[in-house]
Amino acid sequence: MKAKSFAVPAVDKPLEYHEFERREPTSKDVELEVHYCGVCHSDIHTARGDWGEVEYPCVPGHEIIGVVTRIGDAVTEFKPGERVAVGCMVNSCGECEACKQGFENSCFNETIWTYSSKDPVDGTDTKGGYSTIMIAPEHFVLHVPETLDSAQAAPLLCAGITTYSPLRHWNVGPGKKVGIIGLGGLGHMGVKYAKAMGAEVWVITTSPEKAETAKSYGSTGVIVSTSKKDMDIAAHKFDFLLDTIPKAHDLAPYLQLLNVHGTICLVGPIEPMPGFHSGDVINGQKSIAGSGIGGIKETKEMLEYSVKNNIFPDIEVIKAQDINKAWDSLTKKQMSKRYVIDMRKSFPS
Amino acid sequence: MKAKSFAVPAVDKPLEYHEFERREPTSKDVELEVHYCGVCHSDIHTARGDWGEVEYPCVPGHEIIGVVTRIGDAVTEFKPGERVAVGCMVNSCGECEACKQGFENSCFNETIWTYSSKDPVDGTDTKGGYSTIMIAPEHFVLHVPETLDSAQAAPLLCAGITTYSPLRHWNVGPGKKVGIIGLGGLGHMGVKYAKAMGAEVWVITTSPEKAETAKSYGSTGVIVSTSKKDMDIAAHKFDFLLDTIPKAHDLAPYLQLLNVHGTICLVGPIEPMPGFHSGDVINGQKSIAGSGIGGIKETKEMLEYSVKNNIFPDIEVIKAQDINKAWDSLTKKQMSKRYVIDMRKSFPS
Repeated sequence: MKAKSFAVPAVDKPLEYHEFERREPTSKDVELEVHYCGVCHSDIHTARGDWGEVEYPCVPGHEIIGVVTRIGDAVTEFKPGERVAVGCMVNSCGECEACKQGFENSCFNETIWTYSSKDPVDGTDTKGGYSTIMIAPEHFVLHVPETLDSAQAAPLLCAGITTYSPLRHWNVGPGKKVGIIGLGGLGHMGVKYAKAMGAEVWVITTSPEKAETAKSYGSTGVIVSTSKKDMDIAAHKFDFLLDTIPKAHDLAPYLQLLNVHGTICLVGPIEPMPGFHSGDVINGQKSIAGSGIGGIKETKEMLEYSVKNNIFPDIEVIKAQDINKAWDSLTKKQMSKRYVIDMRKSFPS
Repeated sequence: MKAKSFAVPAVDKPLEYHEFERREPTSKDVELEVHYCGVCHSDIHTARGDWGEVEYPCVPGHEIIGVVTRIGDAVTEFKPGERVAVGCMVNSCGECEACKQGFENSCFNETIWTYSSKDPVDGTDTKGGYSTIMIAPEHFVLHVPETLDSAQAAPLLCAGITTYSPLRHWNVGPGKKVGIIGLGGLGHMGVKYAKAMGAEVWVITTSPEKAETAKSYGSTGVIVSTSKKDMDIAAHKFDFLLDTIPKAHDLAPYLQLLNVHGTICLVGPIEPMPGFHSGDVINGQKSIAGSGIGGIKETKEMLEYSVKNNIFPDIEVIKAQDINKAWDSLTKKQMSKRYVIDMRKSFPS
């Protein structure tokens, strides 16, 4: 099937219109018409080669909501016309201990990402949701709860699960003080989840002008990370820090904000981090952790939790034709919500 | 009181006999005659300036067993003639949240270490247990359970608590697979505690010749960290790694040994660590943690646990006059047990 998309033609070139041939679904696959796709900072990192060399043209996009158009013979959970979601991954070995325990995102062999991975079916480069058609094995396709708005649902598939999973794993809840570092697409979801889980939430940011927005999401206050005074006052105050800064950075200023037994969890950068002083974790029995999306089981749980607790991303719907402007705005840290591409408006049939 | 000791006279000089004047005990202090003092790799690091500049002569030693000789007027828990212990710290602010919760070792103001810290009473440099007399406030002095041998008890105060505390905090127990990296003074205690707590224990070492010793401590087997084959087989196998390597090192080879949700805990080096790739913790929701000794409350718990479970260090008793040879052997990684100085034999009165 011919898919229309916006793709990055080369490491340093803007995105442009690109048509390509989607392979046929296998017996296990679900094919969908893409209605909405969220715009994630990872899209930029990957396409710009920050996380390693990739094949071009690169079609990003891994926060995908659409409607089933075709199913393979062996598919039992979905039928054409149903509204479905695809997130950051489209395959994994299914046989290792991680997969068996429901952590396909940490497959010991290889997680196949939604774009810029090698499709095990035909060996081609996977292409993401900035396109009109997607294909994924049934196991990696999710039902979308009925009351969820399609455009708002899209960012849950990456920004949602990436913040929900670590907040759950590190038992954020009543009596805990939580800092969300960075108030972008991930950070704003982190504030909402941590607040819903019962924690006292603070936003730690370089942008003091985001204070009102932070409060509207549920933050008690804002700590400006470039202010020595703010950072000194906040010393030893936090049980858990969710670090959404999307590039490598020094952890020392944040480690000093942790209480005894505190954890800082990196969900932003996937790259070499600078060194750290082991005394900064030894003193206080602290941890530097990491977390990336979540398994399929937990992603389903997150969708249910979001609906039940009315947690939705704040979004700005755009056309695919505006994608370069959107990327530019993300890079300049101007957004404290999520861009979502309306694919049907972008490519009316 | 005049104390006899072995001290480091300068950063690059061997230890030598040194007499100094111990200050008088305050009303809150306990004075003890030192009977035994363990030899810790930290003694070398500190005295050699690896962890920052120190004052010379430096009198190391923070695994101290002795007998009370004098007490201050306000002391209520101890009386002369009782056998007591002093560990790595001799004071803290007592007022911050960490101290109030029993984590004097992580005092938000300043933990006063047993040697090479500034004594808040008279501003002099603290001097440790390679000396015949010690003084510490009552709160930092511990009773020694009756059945515990004095020489064997000494290393519990640092090597014991430093391994016990993180194994407890990260819930090591039945069904967990634990790797102890390095089989020296700390490592050999780590093996014994982890085994007693019910975990399956493996030793990860550069020294294959330590395999039999490791097994005698309770290790199921040994993984040679310089063997690619050993390390590949062990990939993703461990829930918890206790890293006792006493200097900065690359964490990447060890992070790959962790299962999903696994933690590596640094207890050896207190210095700048090299950078790490955040993908190595993000993939698998892993943690890099640190831990240093434990609070007074937990140190008491560790002493009781050790007696109840028959966990004692393997030691070699030496005279203070042999201390340079002992340090040399530690530096060359030849020891998989603990040297303990017999102070009375070293300085017969």
